[in-house]
Amino acid sequence: MKKSVGKPERLYPNPIVLASCSDGINDNIITLAWAGTVCSNPPMISISIRPSRYSHKLIMSSKEFVINIPNKKILAACDFCGTKSGRDFDKFKETNLTREKGLVIKTPMIKECEVNIECRVKDIIHLGTHDLFIGEVLNVNADEKIIYSDGDIDYEKIEVLSYLMGHYLGNKIIK
Amino acid sequence: MKKSVGKPERLYPNPIVLASCSDGINDNIITLAWAGTVCSNPPMISISIRPSRYSHKLIMSSKEFVINIPNKKILAACDFCGTKSGRDFDKFKETNLTREKGLVIKTPMIKECEVNIECRVKDIIHLGTHDLFIGEVLNVNADEKIIYSDGDIDYEKIEVLSYLMGHYLGNKIIK
Repeated sequence: MKKSVGKPERLYPNPIVLASCSDGINDNIITLAWAGTVCSNPPMISISIRPSRYSHKLIMSSKEFVINIPNKKILAACDFCGTKSGRDFDKFKETNLTREKGLVIKTPMIKECEVNIECRVKDIIHLGTHDLFIGEVLNVNADEKIIYSDGDIDYEKIEVLSYLMGHYLGNKIIK
Repeated sequence: MKKSVGKPERLYPNPIVLASCSDGINDNIITLAWAGTVCSNPPMISISIRPSRYSHKLIMSSKEFVINIPNKKILAACDFCGTKSGRDFDKFKETNLTREKGLVIKTPMIKECEVNIECRVKDIIHLGTHDLFIGEVLNVNADEKIIYSDGDIDYEKIEVLSYLMGHYLGNKIIK
């Protein structure tokens, strides 16, 4: 039997990404579960961020961000970047994550993430508690160890994560 | 060492949902990986669909859809609803999935999915190959067997799935 549980948003599991951002002076990293692919051509990814967040301010200023795909080894950094504010901490320093220069945009990528997706903001949609940033994918960088000969990324070589109500999920291909 | 792999969209893993839709006469189900939570208040979920899809037409007509969360038992139905067109098949009939009446909207939910999220379209954003439907969550229904006493959904009781480049991922909490 089904029962109504009200109307909170309940779509799980979600992806989990580290979005890096910068206003040219200060860099920051925010852990996000509300992120996803939204268009093939032009390739686009969306992220939702509350206007009160420091990262929101940085992205509004630069109109760019990098989607960095985390792995099991940096779970503590995911926690830190998802619970602390860049107003109070230099998150690159505190997490020991390393800045890496992108190919197209100025915002630093995260070296410890095997996949880094450089995005430029195309649109910002004010939804309510969150603003939806639509980013056009300008370039995708990947560790050469996980690139197939045809140029595709072998995501199976990363221990990819999903997010479910406060938990990190490890993934295993079942079909 | 990092290498550029061009600019396809590369955000993985994704959620995997069955979106049910209807124009009042014909019902359909489409499997989507490009779906996600985008706002807390009002609660909102977005889905991206190509304008050529039959489901796009139905949602444009009714301005509503249901997000049904699939499980391991209905992988064959996920395949079918993600690769066949509702123009050619009655997907409820072909997959043996069962219509269930929602609480708020007219579009049928899928009984075999433990969680059904009733959404009304608030906005449609034309991105390129895909249109982004922003749906406001009007009601969430869940199997009473997976509802905690506080009303939260115990997603651990469902064998939730994620999607990664043509594969279904089973999930296991690691932290």
